[in-house]
Amino acid sequence: MQFPTAVDPQWIASFINAELIGATGHQATGINEIHKVTPGDISFVDHEKYYDTCLRSAATFIIINKKVDCPDGKTLFVCEDPFSAYVKLVKHFRPFVPSDKMVSDSALIGEDTVIMPGAFIGHHVTIGRNCLIHPNVTIYDHTEIGDNVIIHAGTVLGADAFYFKRRKERASQYDKLESCGRVIIHDDVEIGAGCTIDKGVSGDTVIGRGTKLDNQVHIGHGTVIGSNCLFAAQVGIAGKARIEDEVILWGQVGVNKDLTIGRGAVVYAQSGVPSSLEGGKVYFGSPVDEARTKMKELAASKMLPEIWKRINS
Amino acid sequence: MQFPTAVDPQWIASFINAELIGATGHQATGINEIHKVTPGDISFVDHEKYYDTCLRSAATFIIINKKVDCPDGKTLFVCEDPFSAYVKLVKHFRPFVPSDKMVSDSALIGEDTVIMPGAFIGHHVTIGRNCLIHPNVTIYDHTEIGDNVIIHAGTVLGADAFYFKRRKERASQYDKLESCGRVIIHDDVEIGAGCTIDKGVSGDTVIGRGTKLDNQVHIGHGTVIGSNCLFAAQVGIAGKARIEDEVILWGQVGVNKDLTIGRGAVVYAQSGVPSSLEGGKVYFGSPVDEARTKMKELAASKMLPEIWKRINS
Amino acid sequence: MQFPTAVDPQWIASFINAELIGATGHQATGINEIHKVTPGDISFVDHEKYYDTCLRSAATFIIINKKVDCPDGKTLFVCEDPFSAYVKLVKHFRPFVPSDKMVSDSALIGEDTVIMPGAFIGHHVTIGRNCLIHPNVTIYDHTEIGDNVIIHAGTVLGADAFYFKRRKERASQYDKLESCGRVIIHDDVEIGAGCTIDKGVSGDTVIGRGTKLDNQVHIGHGTVIGSNCLFAAQVGIAGKARIEDEVILWGQVGVNKDLTIGRGAVVYAQSGVPSSLEGGKVYFGSPVDEARTKMKELAASKMLPEIWKRINS
Repeated sequence: MQFPTAVDPQWIASFINAELIGATGHQATGINEIHKVTPGDISFVDHEKYYDTCLRSAATFIIINKKVDCPDGKTLFVCEDPFSAYVKLVKHFRPFVPSDKMVSDSALIGEDTVIMPGAFIGHHVTIGRNCLIHPNVTIYDHTEIGDNVIIHAGTVLGADAFYFKRRKERASQYDKLESCGRVIIHDDVEIGAGCTIDKGVSGDTVIGRGTKLDNQVHIGHGTVIGSNCLFAAQVGIAGKARIEDEVILWGQVGVNKDLTIGRGAVVYAQSGVPSSLEGGKVYFGSPVDEARTKMKELAASKMLPEIWKRINS
Repeated sequence: MQFPTAVDPQWIASFINAELIGATGHQATGINEIHKVTPGDISFVDHEKYYDTCLRSAATFIIINKKVDCPDGKTLFVCEDPFSAYVKLVKHFRPFVPSDKMVSDSALIGEDTVIMPGAFIGHHVTIGRNCLIHPNVTIYDHTEIGDNVIIHAGTVLGADAFYFKRRKERASQYDKLESCGRVIIHDDVEIGAGCTIDKGVSGDTVIGRGTKLDNQVHIGHGTVIGSNCLFAAQVGIAGKARIEDEVILWGQVGVNKDLTIGRGAVVYAQSGVPSSLEGGKVYFGSPVDEARTKMKELAASKMLPEIWKRINS
Repeated sequence: MQFPTAVDPQWIASFINAELIGATGHQATGINEIHKVTPGDISFVDHEKYYDTCLRSAATFIIINKKVDCPDGKTLFVCEDPFSAYVKLVKHFRPFVPSDKMVSDSALIGEDTVIMPGAFIGHHVTIGRNCLIHPNVTIYDHTEIGDNVIIHAGTVLGADAFYFKRRKERASQYDKLESCGRVIIHDDVEIGAGCTIDKGVSGDTVIGRGTKLDNQVHIGHGTVIGSNCLFAAQVGIAGKARIEDEVILWGQVGVNKDLTIGRGAVVYAQSGVPSSLEGGKVYFGSPVDEARTKMKELAASKMLPEIWKRINS
């Protein structure tokens, strides 16, 4: 997320009770995850093995749990628990504000857009022209929707990222990473009924132009989907996946986090995608293989009882 | 769908900007898909390979993108883009009409039926006697529900068919086939929470008498389900499938489009059904096989590492 | 369920039109399933093969379809159709009461808890402090929710158990077992968007402290989930399963009914769990095996076409 106005690092250090090391001359302009940071951003790191990645990233401000050498031009906020410090910042800059009406006064709704009864539109949501939001849809705060978008009933855009840090020493072990990202829906997208598309942790979850989702599709936090994709019903995609243009996923396909599915790939129904797939090919299986290879394997597997018998005779 | 009153073919030709060829004496009475057409219906065809099927079908009126010989007693509407002409007709005869209240004034609700708060009931919906519609259910326009039907919270009946024509030359490649079919729920059906049942493209999606659906079940457009079926949670069925009476699908089963599952078939959990299944049998696997066969294959597959070792020794 | 006040067995016999055999001195205090009964409870049995289990259970009152020897200190209600008698009692003591507002006057909502617009809160629901109930959530009657609980949009708590008795002789064959159990959500639980958690048939469905559910998770009736579990999106768990503490289920995992998953077990995405799993281990596959074993099997299965060729050469 970007801050509405730049923030002084001294104020941040004091707010999160951290020691400031390094440069003090620049202002913080936003919060981001390590794989998305740009100059001006604040990020955090609390595992030694990610120190290097974080210190070398584009982030200008790093909340860290150890005094390390500060790279030139960067600012460190050293504190015991960077995760909690980060969450405190997120809650401060993106506080949850309850609503008392179905459509927030701060929502911007374009011309010829229809909001059906029972649909909830949160604060600072923008919806373009000629959209149709069906009944009982829920659109969380800060979601952005383009023109000619159709969202079917019961769908939820912008619920929180499913992202927790384990604290084994606590009775309730999972400490929530508050999310401050958004959901961005481009023009000409249609989303079926009963879908759930989570907001990004600090970046955005994006559905590209002309992509069509059938019912009960789940898209995790920060996943970026290209244009003209087609996802059949009950597809589930975990967080921070990258699905390129014109990808087709058939029903009940599951896709792991942190991977890329290349342009034009087709994945048959009920397949599971554990890692990146090259574009332009057809896949099947759980875990997936190229469909032709998998089909041969399936044909041969029908011979297994016969193979076992022969090998024992 | 059936038109409220018969429509003159000359008006249609002019409305969709088509050349009329053939008979002009009869009136059009409805719109239907090629596999469902009856005399009086309008259908469309835009691929040469389906010309024959369409011209020989019961459809009286055919929107087609080539001047062909017109069969006796039929009428052709020749135009460049039959798909768009068809969509124009659907939009004209079944226009989307926004609602400004949760229960439309045109809905017919039977005696002793309870509509809970937050449930949306669209225009021209009919619901029989002694039904219970739980909170936050959405029932789109024209849905028909029998007596003693229970629909649990968050379920959506009648969202649009997931049916698009690809137009590679456009920026947004998927052109939507507007659906004008309905969802028909017979007596004594119970539908769990968070289910989605799409309307048919031009025919009806049907759930037969006494069938029970658990939560988060998805039923695609135009699928016809018999009586006394039992579908466990998270089952997904694609469009235009035919599920006969007394079929049992366990949890997370996926069923392909355009197939038939015979009477009394049982499909175990997480199975995938790519093509038609004979009734009265038990199935398992993705893709499914008869359960006994699949169980033997699974048992033998545990021997695979041993087989591989022996074959290489 | 427990009755609000103790009930005289003579009244029950008359209400369900049964013959009372055995002790008459004690009062009935509740209704329960056979695997959950405690003294004072009423249970029912209608299959000879379960007679023994039921008669030896802790249930004080047993509705049964045959005159059998009545164990000391117990009371039998003998009638033709114990299932229907039981359902009649449930409907009497836990009748469905329609609501005319989104938040029932009888609901108890703790301090600092936010109920967002469009959320439905049924009769006799209790929600603790500092909870956040997002828009278009549905919470059925009698649900109990602890402190610091977050429930995302569109989620449904407390829909009816999916539990039917087949009556082949009827036109509508499935006779519904009315459920009178509850959903109990402990402190610090977070439930994603579009989840469905059913009430127990007569006992409770429980989500333990600190457990986190991603979107579109389904939990069946009477399933008891421990503390600090993590279930990823689209997981489905059937009825009366027991999931111990700190279990992790990845996306689209399916879990059968009436089993136990031991403490700390991890089940990889898309796996199917047909029977109990020991704790502390990692599992994969449909049906599951230990992940290491399954991985070896999957590696060997890639060799299958080669194996088949060699065995035939």
